[in-house]
Amino acid sequence: MINIGLIGYGYWGPNLARNFSVNPDFKLAAVCDFSADRLERARRMHPQARLFSSLDDFFKADLDAVAIATPVATHHELARRSLESGRHVWLEKPMTETVAQAEDLIELAQRGQRVLLVDHTFVFTGAVRKIKALIDKGELGDLVYYDSTRVNLGLFQQDVNVLWDLAPHDISIMDFLLPFKKVAVSATGCHYYGNGLVPKSLLTIYMEGNVVGHINVSWVSPVKIRQTLIGGTARMVLYDDTQPSEKIKVYDKGVDLDVADKDAVYRLKVQYRVGDMYAPKIEDHEALALETAHFADCIANGREPLTGGLAGREVVKVLVASEQSLRSRGAPVEL
Amino acid sequence: MINIGLIGYGYWGPNLARNFSVNPDFKLAAVCDFSADRLERARRMHPQARLFSSLDDFFKADLDAVAIATPVATHHELARRSLESGRHVWLEKPMTETVAQAEDLIELAQRGQRVLLVDHTFVFTGAVRKIKALIDKGELGDLVYYDSTRVNLGLFQQDVNVLWDLAPHDISIMDFLLPFKKVAVSATGCHYYGNGLVPKSLLTIYMEGNVVGHINVSWVSPVKIRQTLIGGTARMVLYDDTQPSEKIKVYDKGVDLDVADKDAVYRLKVQYRVGDMYAPKIEDHEALALETAHFADCIANGREPLTGGLAGREVVKVLVASEQSLRSRGAPVEL
Amino acid sequence: MINIGLIGYGYWGPNLARNFSVNPDFKLAAVCDFSADRLERARRMHPQARLFSSLDDFFKADLDAVAIATPVATHHELARRSLESGRHVWLEKPMTETVAQAEDLIELAQRGQRVLLVDHTFVFTGAVRKIKALIDKGELGDLVYYDSTRVNLGLFQQDVNVLWDLAPHDISIMDFLLPFKKVAVSATGCHYYGNGLVPKSLLTIYMEGNVVGHINVSWVSPVKIRQTLIGGTARMVLYDDTQPSEKIKVYDKGVDLDVADKDAVYRLKVQYRVGDMYAPKIEDHEALALETAHFADCIANGREPLTGGLAGREVVKVLVASEQSLRSRGAPVEL
Amino acid sequence: MINIGLIGYGYWGPNLARNFSVNPDFKLAAVCDFSADRLERARRMHPQARLFSSLDDFFKADLDAVAIATPVATHHELARRSLESGRHVWLEKPMTETVAQAEDLIELAQRGQRVLLVDHTFVFTGAVRKIKALIDKGELGDLVYYDSTRVNLGLFQQDVNVLWDLAPHDISIMDFLLPFKKVAVSATGCHYYGNGLVPKSLLTIYMEGNVVGHINVSWVSPVKIRQTLIGGTARMVLYDDTQPSEKIKVYDKGVDLDVADKDAVYRLKVQYRVGDMYAPKIEDHEALALETAHFADCIANGREPLTGGLAGREVVKVLVASEQSLRSRGAPVEL
Repeated sequence: MINIGLIGYGYWGPNLARNFSVNPDFKLAAVCDFSADRLERARRMHPQARLFSSLDDFFKADLDAVAIATPVATHHELARRSLESGRHVWLEKPMTETVAQAEDLIELAQRGQRVLLVDHTFVFTGAVRKIKALIDKGELGDLVYYDSTRVNLGLFQQDVNVLWDLAPHDISIMDFLLPFKKVAVSATGCHYYGNGLVPKSLLTIYMEGNVVGHINVSWVSPVKIRQTLIGGTARMVLYDDTQPSEKIKVYDKGVDLDVADKDAVYRLKVQYRVGDMYAPKIEDHEALALETAHFADCIANGREPLTGGLAGREVVKVLVASEQSLRSRGAPVEL
Repeated sequence: MINIGLIGYGYWGPNLARNFSVNPDFKLAAVCDFSADRLERARRMHPQARLFSSLDDFFKADLDAVAIATPVATHHELARRSLESGRHVWLEKPMTETVAQAEDLIELAQRGQRVLLVDHTFVFTGAVRKIKALIDKGELGDLVYYDSTRVNLGLFQQDVNVLWDLAPHDISIMDFLLPFKKVAVSATGCHYYGNGLVPKSLLTIYMEGNVVGHINVSWVSPVKIRQTLIGGTARMVLYDDTQPSEKIKVYDKGVDLDVADKDAVYRLKVQYRVGDMYAPKIEDHEALALETAHFADCIANGREPLTGGLAGREVVKVLVASEQSLRSRGAPVEL
Repeated sequence: MINIGLIGYGYWGPNLARNFSVNPDFKLAAVCDFSADRLERARRMHPQARLFSSLDDFFKADLDAVAIATPVATHHELARRSLESGRHVWLEKPMTETVAQAEDLIELAQRGQRVLLVDHTFVFTGAVRKIKALIDKGELGDLVYYDSTRVNLGLFQQDVNVLWDLAPHDISIMDFLLPFKKVAVSATGCHYYGNGLVPKSLLTIYMEGNVVGHINVSWVSPVKIRQTLIGGTARMVLYDDTQPSEKIKVYDKGVDLDVADKDAVYRLKVQYRVGDMYAPKIEDHEALALETAHFADCIANGREPLTGGLAGREVVKVLVASEQSLRSRGAPVEL
Repeated sequence: MINIGLIGYGYWGPNLARNFSVNPDFKLAAVCDFSADRLERARRMHPQARLFSSLDDFFKADLDAVAIATPVATHHELARRSLESGRHVWLEKPMTETVAQAEDLIELAQRGQRVLLVDHTFVFTGAVRKIKALIDKGELGDLVYYDSTRVNLGLFQQDVNVLWDLAPHDISIMDFLLPFKKVAVSATGCHYYGNGLVPKSLLTIYMEGNVVGHINVSWVSPVKIRQTLIGGTARMVLYDDTQPSEKIKVYDKGVDLDVADKDAVYRLKVQYRVGDMYAPKIEDHEALALETAHFADCIANGREPLTGGLAGREVVKVLVASEQSLRSRGAPVEL
């Protein structure tokens, strides 16, 4: 039984608390938040957990692991304190504000032989796992692009650009599915509302082998869109997370370019191949439940998490470079 | 009655021919194409038109106007020849390969008092005209962004990047709806297939007043997507051209940021306003039919077309700068 | 504070238990189920509730109200016992197996001045309440039809035809929105699988004034469809419960028949009026939460529930007649 | 070369004229209509055809075949006259007003060895042909139901109920895909608008072996829906004709009822099997073009059309019985 304490009972924290409660390997032993209202809500849902408004008191509690669901500016300090006091760490995304901070945590975890999991939840969804399985079986052929639109209405953050809020989902999914070396990024966007925040941005990630990632994120779309296209030379995937069923569609479509026969290209105008589409059945589970079980397994068996410090650092690296590119109107920043 | 001759009877030319035939102000007098097959097809559909495989002969025919539906590389020469011989010109998009060429044609048309229409067809659709009307009535408030995804499967061009093929649609629509001074562009994309062509690209257009245009174009998407979001401070529009009905949805949604009250922002996490959505009825006509009538009207009354040389040049200017940015991985290019 | 006990912790019971727990006016004091597994699940979620496997013991507990979420065959007996012992009753749909049973409960509740609520949950959704408000404001004009398709995959019941399982939703929504006197029903369907159960059925309800209800229910559809059309002479509504947003669309469409001018009809072929569509904003709440609060209010103030015994009886009356029609291949049965 | 004459140049006739013009085996030699406006439109599109306002003159023309696209009340007389004068006949659906009339035409065609094709266009679509191919390969297992919703806004007919206008499409598709002996029908619906016409109807067709057809047709729906579900014991199909692509979806879903194990049923509540979905590629052709070629082939080779007199009579038989059932509120009528 792993005694776990949670810091931050705001938007995401309650989901973590519920999953740690339901999973038999964990005991939700403590919740820490500076808001009395939030602590009262935690008390109603989880009467067995001790409640703290002081971090010092929280860290004195008998805890094997700490889950951190607070703003990113506090991640490094809270995770460092947890690891230094010998706790395993579940850390929300994005992992840290800087690459140096991420590397500090990675080293601390390694040295102390603690598990450091970064909560890239989408990697644990049935949909992303199914796409990964298709790729591993070679169904898509050589991968050539990742293109995602993740837009909705809502200013979820008041201190960072939209890139830091929404792009981590796509960067972590892309890193999991297309694990190619990233070489440069270009990011664009404007701030409109006088507060200096960019609520809408396009991000391009150049990878080795002419593979490219295109990510469109926005807090100012009237509709919620979650459309991800993944292009392979053999097949292409449309992953639409807003669909209640058929979230993944695999298209037997491709472009076969006969470079030698310029004339044929000219005459035919369009050179493509079109076959059937299919929507594979997807495991139906809550991603967080699987991720919680995975965290328990890593702790029990000393395993490196699927989404550990290295995956977390990769996301931070892209975000930091993107932020720099954004400030110079898309000028490329090498990674 | 305007005697019109058409050069190019490939993909788009037959649509022009049909519209010139149906419109009572025009007589489709001649068709010119270097392909015997295409001329044969033209003969079956338009037995009254004279057919030419030689440009010299075509230009000797008795023509008041010339419509040019050929690859962009030939536009300047053919349009110049038409204008110099005193004909009005209907020119396919993109207008020319360079801004200098566009300006040359604009000057020639002005000097000869000929009508020069650039075929930005979407500007004549019921949907785009309805959005324009909504904007003009102030329903959207101040405009802040244009965001379009225009992707499908198909290599329609063999000599230019996807930007030159698909982006002109969006640049011309955006120029019509958000007529702000454009200050810089950033474009990204890779070539994958060994032919040096970029089949997928992201384009950002920075405009005065922190207004931004984001355009995603692709020839390598397994699905056809035509989604355009237009953000205003009062309302936002979703324009989906693939829908058989309800192509335009107007959302009474917005972001009201109270910068003074940082605490409120923090507590509420999301500061937005959500009301009803409505889908206005749209005129049901063929865009080309309306554009054909507009061309006739401009010729008859010496009017400047809605999509004349200046609109055409604006598109070329953005394309040329985007091509340059694309070659340097998104580095911004000033306009 | 109302002490409430729940009988039946199967598919729907847990939702009731959760809502009674969250609502401050109720205390979930007891749960009764004959399955040890289910009681164990209830224990984990609601440690404060007393658990019973014996009905006799359950009814001895200190309870002000009883919620009954068991198969329909048991409803009359359990509700009767609850009312006779002075408890208010929350009864799942369909209310009873026969009209006589329904009337017996109505009389018992009246005599004992107890609240008898039949759980027609949809009546408490934001969508149905919004449609009701539109109708009450006269936005739809005179109502002419209700047409609903409610199909999915799943044999939820093993002892009744699909009509008893899925049609109560539509009959209760229709009864709420189009409260016209029902005069006859016709129901059709086959049993396919050798078990004598009809898994798919069409139901027509004839009402006064040539108003008609058409209901299509199925357990054997590969896709889940929840499409309800409501036709008025002024406007028409599409209510699609599977949509994450825009569940209700109001169409400014209608049919204007000029009977006098037969020739006009003939020449024009189609005589209709088409205007804008709009999707009104809908209250975002859990229907059961609102219904729970309504139950508390009825108990506190001695009010008749919106979905009381009379509404429940109306549904039973239609179901019983439909079952009879179903056995004679659609022959109409008067109500 | 088959000289064909067309009677009726209203809504559907122009499509026939265009297809007969394009097909090299036909020559559109004559068009007959009592409306001068329509004849003028025919003259512009088909200058080579002779135009007639008199049937007597039309029938004197040199014609090998006659296509009849007029109201159903005229079908029998016009087809009879065509067959008696030795012409092959292309006849719009529904074939005739009565079964006796249909049988009269069948006999006339047989006796004169003329081809009699009834225009059940949907049978020639790529989608319906693909479903037929799937069924013939056994992919769906045993067929158990056909369920179609075909609703839109528009009073296309002024002299018949909606059943005669829209249901022939579904009856002919169903007859082609599920060729089981039909045993009885039940049809319901009301007239609302004071003209005595039923604009909305539910139709059930009972077939041998407990197979059932459910058809929902309406002229008074605010939205256009074309949803057909076809249930087999092995797989189920959703055919949605409004989709621009993926018109057919094949679901590897089914219901496996273990009647022996009543307890298992009870415990699990839902007993179904869910696998992948796939959308097969569909031939992309105009149905009428294929049907036109088929008509030419039948004439040239003396073949019986796929949709000949017997298929036409089957539709009329169902319509006549449905009309009778409709007048008695769904009372079943045996076939």
